[in-house]
Amino acid sequence: MSVELAKGTRDLSPAESILQQEIIAVLQKTFETFGFNPLQTPVLERYETLSSKYAGGAEILKETFKLKDQGDRDLGLRYDLTVPFSRFVAMNPQLKQPFKRYQIGPVFRDGPVGSNRLREFTQCDCDVVGTKSIAADAECVQLFLQCFSQLGLKIEVRVNNRKILDGIMQTLQVPEEKWGAVILAIDKLDKKSRKEVEEEILGLRIKKEAVAKLFTLIDLKGTNTNILDQVAAFVGETNEGVIEMRELLRYCPEKNVLFVPSLARGLSYYTGSIFEVYATEGSVVVAVGSGGRYDKMIGALLGSSQEYPAVGCSFGLDRTMNALAEKRKETLKSVVQVYVVSIGLPVAKVWDVVMELRVAGVPTDVGFTAKGVSKGLDYANAYAIPYAILIGEDELKAKKVKLKDMKSGKEEFLTVKQVVKKLK
Amino acid sequence: MSVELAKGTRDLSPAESILQQEIIAVLQKTFETFGFNPLQTPVLERYETLSSKYAGGAEILKETFKLKDQGDRDLGLRYDLTVPFSRFVAMNPQLKQPFKRYQIGPVFRDGPVGSNRLREFTQCDCDVVGTKSIAADAECVQLFLQCFSQLGLKIEVRVNNRKILDGIMQTLQVPEEKWGAVILAIDKLDKKSRKEVEEEILGLRIKKEAVAKLFTLIDLKGTNTNILDQVAAFVGETNEGVIEMRELLRYCPEKNVLFVPSLARGLSYYTGSIFEVYATEGSVVVAVGSGGRYDKMIGALLGSSQEYPAVGCSFGLDRTMNALAEKRKETLKSVVQVYVVSIGLPVAKVWDVVMELRVAGVPTDVGFTAKGVSKGLDYANAYAIPYAILIGEDELKAKKVKLKDMKSGKEEFLTVKQVVKKLK
Repeated sequence: MSVELAKGTRDLSPAESILQQEIIAVLQKTFETFGFNPLQTPVLERYETLSSKYAGGAEILKETFKLKDQGDRDLGLRYDLTVPFSRFVAMNPQLKQPFKRYQIGPVFRDGPVGSNRLREFTQCDCDVVGTKSIAADAECVQLFLQCFSQLGLKIEVRVNNRKILDGIMQTLQVPEEKWGAVILAIDKLDKKSRKEVEEEILGLRIKKEAVAKLFTLIDLKGTNTNILDQVAAFVGETNEGVIEMRELLRYCPEKNVLFVPSLARGLSYYTGSIFEVYATEGSVVVAVGSGGRYDKMIGALLGSSQEYPAVGCSFGLDRTMNALAEKRKETLKSVVQVYVVSIGLPVAKVWDVVMELRVAGVPTDVGFTAKGVSKGLDYANAYAIPYAILIGEDELKAKKVKLKDMKSGKEEFLTVKQVVKKLK
Repeated sequence: MSVELAKGTRDLSPAESILQQEIIAVLQKTFETFGFNPLQTPVLERYETLSSKYAGGAEILKETFKLKDQGDRDLGLRYDLTVPFSRFVAMNPQLKQPFKRYQIGPVFRDGPVGSNRLREFTQCDCDVVGTKSIAADAECVQLFLQCFSQLGLKIEVRVNNRKILDGIMQTLQVPEEKWGAVILAIDKLDKKSRKEVEEEILGLRIKKEAVAKLFTLIDLKGTNTNILDQVAAFVGETNEGVIEMRELLRYCPEKNVLFVPSLARGLSYYTGSIFEVYATEGSVVVAVGSGGRYDKMIGALLGSSQEYPAVGCSFGLDRTMNALAEKRKETLKSVVQVYVVSIGLPVAKVWDVVMELRVAGVPTDVGFTAKGVSKGLDYANAYAIPYAILIGEDELKAKKVKLKDMKSGKEEFLTVKQVVKKLK
């Protein structure tokens, strides 16, 4: 057997899995306190579903893994969790709306592979379908704030609204067919120099004065209200994006929620609010979440005249893991809290102690063969297990065990019940 | 967009997902108290890995989903978690053994679809590699007992040993090339009539007296020790399977652990202990778990002369879900505990209450638009949310809320803090 991973995939070692599980537990709990229910859709979808022109679009379809079943049916591996969510909503018209769900699971993209780009990775999404209320958009922002606060990672949430961007384009008299290209160019301000972006926009034959004005709007500094007031003065207070942003900011007065009028992400299907979340501690500022409102996608996907207004947010699990791992420096290598080592006794003699600890809920492992105490302690050290329990004839007779703190080396002579009490 | 699932796949609704999560949480916690660490391998594996002749075998390879990446590499979707585990062990020679891991995740088989057979389903496996100790086998049996006891589902664990079956075949003077066929026939006693099985074995040209003796062994009644004594009297006390079974039963004296000498599962790669777990309550007795020792598979897969003795167990998540759903009759439709309904107020007025409950950890949802109290209560009822909170001008003034028990209809006038205390 060849012992290689498929290109663009990775294993998560126990240490990495433990960290991932910890993050998922926090996300899951927080999603649920916000009223999102779990939903699971399969990894395999009909190719026809994934390739609908209202789904992810041509770019993503190029990266979709395609396969066939024995009945020669065309299938694909899901590339996101939003299209399957839309399919589920369509298949379940009995669902009372608003319907709020979260899903955590692997998605697949057969694209270029890089240090931050895998072909199989995990998405964690919350979405609500069936409401236009800006309170639902605010819930997404609050969800980001709560989750990362629980995880102990400092973030900022940048917010904007597609209708503000459209309003700016309109007021600048940019021809409508060029809005997309100009907005895409602005969106690159994170990666490209200001001059390059300027030239890209000028290259689209946008007037110099319009570009200059555009940059004064992008450069606005001050509080969210200051910036929004100035943008509103330009596009008009009746611009729907301005109205929605005022409402959103009332729900989100936190200092790390920033109105950024140049934020433009997810151009194709977002229709209102857009969010991008950055981890602000650590060696590099990285995007760890994103989202926005997409009022038209589900209806279009379903070819339905009914509206399915929706808003959602997505947590970047892999990058959050990386950021937390970097911050913590030390991560758990094993869930095991106690490693039981027998002093020259067969494992059967220490079995009852092992089982008592386990039934009491203490993660416990045991050396299966009596290889000597020092080999037993080596094993515990190799997995950074915090405690060892030593049991020999003396301990058996006394109905006690020797609990050894592997860091300090300190030993205590305790009953199993005392050990449970100490470790729980 | 076509709104169909791919054949042989299913969605898990919120109610189903909630139940599945509850089961997974119990399994995960119990696996960890037994010292198994989480490990995650990708869904995508190289086809070469999956198709090794020492992997799942020809039968399962026929059912393996095959696909290619953009680089024209042959890939497959994993059909189990054991082969990827073996690959991981091979790729990580630095791992200190014994190495214990668990993994929970989807696997894929492109086979016939039935009510109990899906093409994408979830496996929950625990395995340990690097020990021949029967204590490790006993750990698997104890893990079944603990997990199902935590889940509140009555089970029995049937155990046998491949070496006992081999010993019986040998003593009956069945030619070695027919052992497999005879054992497979016995294994069907659950599904076929006794007569059919008898005829199948006679059809293999096994002597009548041998078949008669075989059935007296299968028919043995009594305690585990009684049965084992009689089997031992036939195959000899020095038969390794007998010795191992005596040891296993010493570790597992529980009444619902049954030595069943006809149990034969997983013929091809099991080398010692074999387990099968049945749920004994509910309308039908169904297998909800299985496992066994496979000392030769990993080494053979790796083409290694080094031995990789291993034993593991697998939990049938879907059937456990079905059994629990049947037993409980009523399952949670939503994780939400409280649904906040405003009495004619915009959602912004009740927002602080909603957020206070969420931050305190109470799963809370809110009607985004003021549609009237009765519509709000309808929504809470549709999702079987146990409590509603009603807030109008009076409540705002009093800085209290009206908490309504949706089942009894009883209402209380409380502060948010009191609500949190009551519901947590």
